[in-house]
Amino acid sequence: MAENITSQKQDFAQWYQDVIREAELADSSPVRGCMVIRPYGYAIWERIQDSLDARFKATGHENAYFPMFIPQSFIQKEAEHVEGFAPELAIVTHGGGKQLEEPLVVRPTSETIINHMFSKWIGSYRDLPMLLNQWANVVRWEMRPRAFLRTTEFLWQEGHTAHATEAEARAETMRMLGVYRDFAHENAAIPVIPGRKTDREKFAGAVETYSIEAMMGNGWALQSGTSHYLGTNFAKAFNTRYLDENNEQQFVHQSSWGVSTRLVGAVIMVHGDDSGLRLPPDLAPVQVVLVPIHKTDSEREQVMSAACRIRDELAGAGVRVRLDDRTTVSPGFKFNHWEVRGVPLRFELGPRDLASRVVTGSARNRPGRDAKFTIGFDSLLAETTAKLRTIQDELLDEARSRQDSMTWEAATYDEFKARFESESGFCQVWWNGSSEDEERLQQETKATIRCIPLDQEPGEGPCFMTGGKAVHRAIVARAY
Amino acid sequence: MAENITSQKQDFAQWYQDVIREAELADSSPVRGCMVIRPYGYAIWERIQDSLDARFKATGHENAYFPMFIPQSFIQKEAEHVEGFAPELAIVTHGGGKQLEEPLVVRPTSETIINHMFSKWIGSYRDLPMLLNQWANVVRWEMRPRAFLRTTEFLWQEGHTAHATEAEARAETMRMLGVYRDFAHENAAIPVIPGRKTDREKFAGAVETYSIEAMMGNGWALQSGTSHYLGTNFAKAFNTRYLDENNEQQFVHQSSWGVSTRLVGAVIMVHGDDSGLRLPPDLAPVQVVLVPIHKTDSEREQVMSAACRIRDELAGAGVRVRLDDRTTVSPGFKFNHWEVRGVPLRFELGPRDLASRVVTGSARNRPGRDAKFTIGFDSLLAETTAKLRTIQDELLDEARSRQDSMTWEAATYDEFKARFESESGFCQVWWNGSSEDEERLQQETKATIRCIPLDQEPGEGPCFMTGGKAVHRAIVARAY
Repeated sequence: MAENITSQKQDFAQWYQDVIREAELADSSPVRGCMVIRPYGYAIWERIQDSLDARFKATGHENAYFPMFIPQSFIQKEAEHVEGFAPELAIVTHGGGKQLEEPLVVRPTSETIINHMFSKWIGSYRDLPMLLNQWANVVRWEMRPRAFLRTTEFLWQEGHTAHATEAEARAETMRMLGVYRDFAHENAAIPVIPGRKTDREKFAGAVETYSIEAMMGNGWALQSGTSHYLGTNFAKAFNTRYLDENNEQQFVHQSSWGVSTRLVGAVIMVHGDDSGLRLPPDLAPVQVVLVPIHKTDSEREQVMSAACRIRDELAGAGVRVRLDDRTTVSPGFKFNHWEVRGVPLRFELGPRDLASRVVTGSARNRPGRDAKFTIGFDSLLAETTAKLRTIQDELLDEARSRQDSMTWEAATYDEFKARFESESGFCQVWWNGSSEDEERLQQETKATIRCIPLDQEPGEGPCFMTGGKAVHRAIVARAY
Repeated sequence: MAENITSQKQDFAQWYQDVIREAELADSSPVRGCMVIRPYGYAIWERIQDSLDARFKATGHENAYFPMFIPQSFIQKEAEHVEGFAPELAIVTHGGGKQLEEPLVVRPTSETIINHMFSKWIGSYRDLPMLLNQWANVVRWEMRPRAFLRTTEFLWQEGHTAHATEAEARAETMRMLGVYRDFAHENAAIPVIPGRKTDREKFAGAVETYSIEAMMGNGWALQSGTSHYLGTNFAKAFNTRYLDENNEQQFVHQSSWGVSTRLVGAVIMVHGDDSGLRLPPDLAPVQVVLVPIHKTDSEREQVMSAACRIRDELAGAGVRVRLDDRTTVSPGFKFNHWEVRGVPLRFELGPRDLASRVVTGSARNRPGRDAKFTIGFDSLLAETTAKLRTIQDELLDEARSRQDSMTWEAATYDEFKARFESESGFCQVWWNGSSEDEERLQQETKATIRCIPLDQEPGEGPCFMTGGKAVHRAIVARAY
């Protein structure tokens, strides 16, 4: 248990803030609702970007960049879109020393301006599919900000695609949901539930919204990525059409999909413990920290020389290794420094290790003695790589076990309410309620329908709120 | 000479616009002064980012992210800063449906908000140096926008550092100018002149501004990167202090430095020709395009099978290769498509090539027959890599030769004016004029003092405008 970090059990929200402060991930800023992402937090985001960007390119997408300012009239062209976003907009009214004729909205998302450009670029079926992505900042005015989870400005990627047919656009929507699921499992070691959103929770302007939902350490849900089938809603608003093979004008069918810096919050809350962060090796800016131990000058010389060789060997093979050669702080201080920051592997190297030609290692994800091991110099790279792989797998398994153990069922609303009062987690229910039922659920319990999981056995049962016949199960949970 | 592209000689400005359109680098947007960066243009920017980001990290810098909104009062804290930037600001007056108590400025640059955070983070000399960089969008209201060169919103990186002493901050300022020069020479194949800006041209709030100046194809200059020594100007405005080793409060000394998407404009205008772009291999999104040639189905099968093997061999070794396997367009169409886009190497593969186990290659940077060569299958990778290296070097040499041939000297203002009327390029002059002399120079000739080159022999001579004793030579040119 680290100094300055509240225990998760005592106060999970305070624990989250403490970890962000102690690991120097982010800081509050003088601008209400906006945060500063500090270098260590940003380095995690860079790892997330690298992993996702490679996946987007492998599925045929290209990056582009669209203006951050959007004419206010554009936002108003799609009726549901403006209704959903109007309360969250930041508006530029003055530019270059003058009042603007038409105010500009700082993008909350870019469907409108991108459709304006698509309508220019798309002429015939030969121009389709158009598969673009943008890495950008967006602004949605936030009254109750929370670092990484809800901030007025945040960083994200937004994919925008146009297709000739509904089937292709729907396939794309599901493909990118799958990319997010694979990233969460394989890179972030976060088990997620892909599912469909209810009408009440869907994106303003979408026909269908799908999401991946992850369970945080306290049993709350975090919507960690969304993929929307937009139908022809924006195409009709912006007249985005193409000439088909019969020379007839058709509206394009579209998808959009995004994840944000919120994923950093997910990594913190899924894997962190009372000592701070625990990072999955794939996303860790530093995978291995090497701490030299020495007393005399001659010890120091020998230890540092071996430590540099070890660092160079690992770095040369692509391991992200850091030799903490600070002389102003003690080894104990360094252990704590890197423990709070969740570095997966710590290697100590002292005179005795050197004599035995080993490093003494410690895995961040295992408690106390369990964590300790030694690795001989001769098998250093192979064993380091294997250990990192193991930690990656163990973190996923641990998160999955918790998710399983904190997932339960309720047949009726009374049963749900009674248990949910004392027990968080994901509750599986039969669901065919209306948006009004959902509203009541949230008012009375603070829980919401997170999603209708895609992966479920066909079947039917009585809706847990209405008692009516339901053909889908849903996940109910408290969410960030 | 490509269709749809005006020749450089006829109208260089129109040529520039034509290339941007035909190579699909960027498009105008519905927002005045803002452009859309299309995928091919953005891919060049991604290569620039990768090269620079690696150089920044290798020199000890970390990336972070600061809010894009800056309280208006912050901008006003440094007197010269607000005077310089006030006319270019975009102002957010409304957020979340309400008028804001204090308007927010969309960052034109981030010295102010970063100093606010530095004053929180920096306590003692142990916290120094602080070496941060940010990749971000910025806004400076632009009345005469020009794609990539001057747009209201643009993408850039801004480095911000704090140091204990003036000497360290000045050393950092020069180190990063050197990083920019090395990037320009080694990655962009652009010869640049590192130099000091005059007072009139320096950054609002800096003690000294240094830049790299590049000569475009028409002899005009493009300021391609700047590095500022800020002294303690922002530290004093934001009270950014540290406790030194004697336990006394001292202001930090600072630097800031940036390059932007303007560099894409430099790449276009330094290397492009009447057929379109010519990209240096280091920055080319596609380094080699492979065009299969076939008539019959059986030819197609054999050619495509070999083409896939070649692609996989080159791609496996890290060459950015594209197999253009479109069946809807002719080889001639493909040649033109990739020529306009400046792909350094084109490989054709037809039945005859296949029989001889060669590809027929063509280098984009050489005219007509000179460009042609064949490479045997057995030495494909080695020769491709060597050719790319050669093209990279040749482009730099060609740009350097032009710069040399278009650089001349003038002893007096009259001599300068007479020659500059008919001849563009860089003019070397002795200089000790005032800001008023510079103003007159620009009014009368549209030329400006680009910089006082760092690399010059000690000496003295009569200032070309005032006749007074000058100890430095300066570069005078028309600039973008």
